[in-house]
Amino acid sequence: FAVVEGEPDAPQQLFAAEISEHPFGPVSFTGRRWPLADVRLLAPILPTKVVCVGKNYADHAREMGGAPPADPVIFLKPSTAVVGPHAAIRLPADSSRVDYEGELAAVIGRPCKDVPAERAAAAILGYTIANDVTARDQQQADGQWTRAKGHDTFCPLGPWIETTLDPTDLALRTELDGEVRQDARTSLLLHDVPKLVEFVSRVMTLLPGDVILTGTPAGVGPMQPGQTVSITVEGIGTLTNPVEAK
Amino acid sequence: FAVVEGEPDAPQQLFAAEISEHPFGPVSFTGRRWPLADVRLLAPILPTKVVCVGKNYADHAREMGGAPPADPVIFLKPSTAVVGPHAAIRLPADSSRVDYEGELAAVIGRPCKDVPAERAAAAILGYTIANDVTARDQQQADGQWTRAKGHDTFCPLGPWIETTLDPTDLALRTELDGEVRQDARTSLLLHDVPKLVEFVSRVMTLLPGDVILTGTPAGVGPMQPGQTVSITVEGIGTLTNPVEAK
Repeated sequence: FAVVEGEPDAPQQLFAAEISEHPFGPVSFTGRRWPLADVRLLAPILPTKVVCVGKNYADHAREMGGAPPADPVIFLKPSTAVVGPHAAIRLPADSSRVDYEGELAAVIGRPCKDVPAERAAAAILGYTIANDVTARDQQQADGQWTRAKGHDTFCPLGPWIETTLDPTDLALRTELDGEVRQDARTSLLLHDVPKLVEFVSRVMTLLPGDVILTGTPAGVGPMQPGQTVSITVEGIGTLTNPVEAK
Repeated sequence: FAVVEGEPDAPQQLFAAEISEHPFGPVSFTGRRWPLADVRLLAPILPTKVVCVGKNYADHAREMGGAPPADPVIFLKPSTAVVGPHAAIRLPADSSRVDYEGELAAVIGRPCKDVPAERAAAAILGYTIANDVTARDQQQADGQWTRAKGHDTFCPLGPWIETTLDPTDLALRTELDGEVRQDARTSLLLHDVPKLVEFVSRVMTLLPGDVILTGTPAGVGPMQPGQTVSITVEGIGTLTNPVEAK
């Protein structure tokens, strides 16, 4: 693990400062430090679980042909789906349509259960960006979404965890080969981050490093081999992944 | 970890022999050994993922009001739901009906992906028993089954992993307070264990300790606080858990 130091708008002056253990709790530095440009970033965390929320933007619920549910609808992606920035999203041979879904993701900072919304902030280490990659044809065929969203490489996370950020009104933009496909703000989340932490933690104990994907806005669409998908969330950065056939 | 030694039909003469590391690959013994009756068994494995299969017995698909799907329908339970034998299943306050679902479970023995059915046996460490506990009302309300099946304590596993067992035709019996509620044979699985390993590993990399729950037969029904549920699979043993209010 490392802390990224510097200003995001001066990417050539960013550094990765190695920390001695893990990022949960006070960190101490080893003293080793590299220019970020010389470092290959992996996924910023290996979660024990990735909890996702369906239809959490009204415009996306509409484009999927349904009304948004009153309560959050949750599902899980397996940890084996997680990859980092610039790792390839591999399209499985048995799907004819694989979509990007750009999302804000909250990373849990401490073991917790039954967290009321007003105390959710204390349970969160920070925020990162996620691509909830989905084999749309398998999602429709199965009813349950696990296969469609659970393939290896179907959960890009990164590029890092921003630990000082107010998530309530951030611009979220997804580009496919540089063309804007999703353009929304997190203020449009039907269930905001504190509500999601309350809802999910009422069901299951959350552990440090667990990730909650908050849902995707309208504009989802398919990716082809050779394309590149980039998701930018204001105040965090950009998560970029190339797309390849399996 | 320990190896259970002795004959299952003479429970007073069973011993737990401690092994030095993990049960994947050749094991070496520490020499420490206790009567099994003096040992408290935890879940036999802490899986990175629990992959479950819906409607994999025709009679259960019928009792749920649907036809069995042509392909397996998979879903995930979070690892935080796992508990061992004799640990309490805690009924959440926000569900009015929580059901037992007795199942045969396969435990993966090595990292694997794209395993053909005919090589599945080599990927499996052994077999244990699972209770795919389900908040039936939440399952019906959500569509996605993650909340209904993901509450803490909703995945009892155990009592141990049987590593020399042919899973193709085993009696499976679930008793609630000693009354038989499910009574089936694994020969009735619509998709057998090798087929499930092939199907799941085509989607996601399986890791040592991951568990595949093979589905439940007809006879599911609700549990009340104070009751005890026991699932027996021929050749493995009995998984018993008390039921408590949260």
